Amino acid sequence: MSPIQCSLSVSTHSKTPQFDLKTYWTTLILEINQKLDQAVPIQYPDKIYEAMRYSVLAKGAKRAPPVMCVAACELFGGNRHAAFPTACALEMVHSASLIHDDLPCMDDDPSRRGQPSNHKIYGVDMAILAGDALFPLGFRHIVSHTPSDLVPEPRLLSVIAEIARAVGSTGMAAGQFLDLEGGPNSVEFVQEKKFGEMGECSAVCGGLLAGAKDDEIQRLRRYGRAVGVLYQVVDDILEAKTMKSKVDEDKKKRKGKSYVAFYGVEKAIEVAKELRAKAKKELDGFEKYGESVLPLYSFVDYAADRGFSFGESS
Amino acid sequence: MSPIQCSLSVSTHSKTPQFDLKTYWTTLILEINQKLDQAVPIQYPDKIYEAMRYSVLAKGAKRAPPVMCVAACELFGGNRHAAFPTACALEMVHSASLIHDDLPCMDDDPSRRGQPSNHKIYGVDMAILAGDALFPLGFRHIVSHTPSDLVPEPRLLSVIAEIARAVGSTGMAAGQFLDLEGGPNSVEFVQEKKFGEMGECSAVCGGLLAGAKDDEIQRLRRYGRAVGVLYQVVDDILEAKTMKSKVDEDKKKRKGKSYVAFYGVEKAIEVAKELRAKAKKELDGFEKYGESVLPLYSFVDYAADRGFSFGESS
Repeated sequence: MSPIQCSLSVSTHSKTPQFDLKTYWTTLILEINQKLDQAVPIQYPDKIYEAMRYSVLAKGAKRAPPVMCVAACELFGGNRHAAFPTACALEMVHSASLIHDDLPCMDDDPSRRGQPSNHKIYGVDMAILAGDALFPLGFRHIVSHTPSDLVPEPRLLSVIAEIARAVGSTGMAAGQFLDLEGGPNSVEFVQEKKFGEMGECSAVCGGLLAGAKDDEIQRLRRYGRAVGVLYQVVDDILEAKTMKSKVDEDKKKRKGKSYVAFYGVEKAIEVAKELRAKAKKELDGFEKYGESVLPLYSFVDYAADRGFSFGESS
Repeated sequence: MSPIQCSLSVSTHSKTPQFDLKTYWTTLILEINQKLDQAVPIQYPDKIYEAMRYSVLAKGAKRAPPVMCVAACELFGGNRHAAFPTACALEMVHSASLIHDDLPCMDDDPSRRGQPSNHKIYGVDMAILAGDALFPLGFRHIVSHTPSDLVPEPRLLSVIAEIARAVGSTGMAAGQFLDLEGGPNSVEFVQEKKFGEMGECSAVCGGLLAGAKDDEIQRLRRYGRAVGVLYQVVDDILEAKTMKSKVDEDKKKRKGKSYVAFYGVEKAIEVAKELRAKAKKELDGFEKYGESVLPLYSFVDYAADRGFSFGESS
C-alpha cells in the first residue's frame, strides 16, 4: 500500500471487477509496446531515430495515454486495432512534450522514466530535434496506419484536431509557458493544461474513434482531465513526502506550480480525493455499457494509489 | 539585375506572361498575410501568441510555401479558398522550423526575416515553445478551416500526412540533424531535406487539395524540391559574394553543409542553373493547363534571380 493510499481511498466508491483486469492491462500494454517498437523503426539517419526511440520505448514509461485511448475506444464497442495507431501517436507526442519540458532551459530535469533525460544522452540540439520529429510522426502514423474499414475519415480528422489542440498553445504548450513565466493564480491553469490535457485528449480520442456521441465525448473530456491532474497531484504528494535532501529542496523550489508547493500536502490530498471522486462520477454515466467501463475505473485507482497492481486494489 | 542573374539566366527558357503576374502575386500575398493574421490571434496566455506571431507575421517573410501551395492548387482548377488554410499551415510549420533552426544550440542565427531571431526577443525557452505550438496549430487550422464543400476528407488526410512527412525525421528534422552532425557526402542530403522539403511539400499539398493525379503529384514533387534547393543555393551564392568580414568568415565556417562551402561559387552557380532548368522542365509537362502554370514558372525565376520583381524578369 502506498503512503497515501489510506488517505485517498476513503471517499471513493469502487467497482468489483467481473473480469480479469490484470490480464486486460498486461496484455494491452504488451501490445502497445510492440506497436510502438514498429512505429518508430531505425532508418537513416540512425541517430535521430535512436534519440526518438530512447524516450518513446523507455522501460519506465507508464503508457497512460495509449491505454486510456484504447480503453475508451473499447468502452463504446470500438475495435482496439482501430485505436492502436492513435494510441501510438499519443505516446509519441507525449514523449516529445516530455523531452522538451525536461530541457535545461525549461524544467531542467536530469531524469525521466527511470533513465537520464533525452538531452543528457543525446545533447540539447538532438533532444529538440527528437521532439520535433516525434510530433509529426504521430500525426503521420494515424493517417497511414489506421484501418480505413474501421474508422471513417471524418473521425480521423477530429482525432488529429483534438491532439493538435491538446499539445499546442491552447493546451500543453500554454501550460508549460505559464509554468515558466509564473504569475499569480496560475497553479490550476498550469496543472490542467500541463497535466490534464494529455488525459483528456487520450480519452476523447478513444471515444471519437469509436463514434461516441457528443455528450459522451464531453463526459470523457471531464473524466480524462480529472485523471490526468490527479496523477500529477499524487506524484507531487509522493515527492513532497520523500523530499529530504538539499537537492530535493531545490527541485521543490523550482517546481513552483504544483498544488503541494502552493497549498501544502494536506490541501493537495483533499484535491486528489475530489479529483478521484469526480473522475468516477463521470464514469457512472457510462453504466449502461456494463463491464467495458471497468478498465477506466481501475485507471482512476491507479492514478490515485500508484503502488496499485492492476485489478487488485480499491 | 542581381549579381548572378546574368550567369543564371543563360540556359533557361522563359514564358511570356499572358496575364498580369505582378498583380497576381501582390494580391495573393496580401490575402495570405490577412489569413495568417486571423489564423494566429492573440489570446490567453498572450505572450506565447505574441512569440508565435512575431515570426509568422514578420514583414521580411517571403511567403514562398503558401504562395506555391495556392499556385499549385489553382493550376489544377482548384479554388484558392480551398488552399488558404493549408497555405497558412505551411507558413506556420515553416516558421516553427526556422525558429528552432535559429536557436543557439542549432545554427545560432541572430537574425531572420530582417529582424532579430525569435529567441533573441523572447528567450530560448519561449522560442522552443512558440515552435512547439506552431506545428500543431498548423494541423489544427487545416482541419478546422478548410471548407468541407471544396475539399473531401481523404484529400485533407493526405495533406496532413504530406506535411508531417516533410517536417519530421523523414524530412526537415533529418536535414537539420545531419547539418549539425556533419559527416562525409551529406551536403546534397542536407540541402534536399533542409531546404527542398518545404518547396516539395508546398507544391504537392496544392496539387492534393485540387485532386491532381498521381503522376502530376510526382511532377509537382520534383518541381517543388528543385525550387526549394535552388532558392537556398542562390542564397548561399549571394552570401559568399558579399562575405568580407571575420564575422562572416565564422558564419561561412559554421554553415558547412552549403554547396558553396563544399564546392565553391562556380560549381554552385552550375548547380543553380541545373536546378532552374530542371524545375522549368517539370512544368513543361503541365502545358495543357495553359496560363495557369505561369505563376509556377515565375516562381523559378524568383528563386534564381531574387532581385526580380514579379512578372518582369527572365
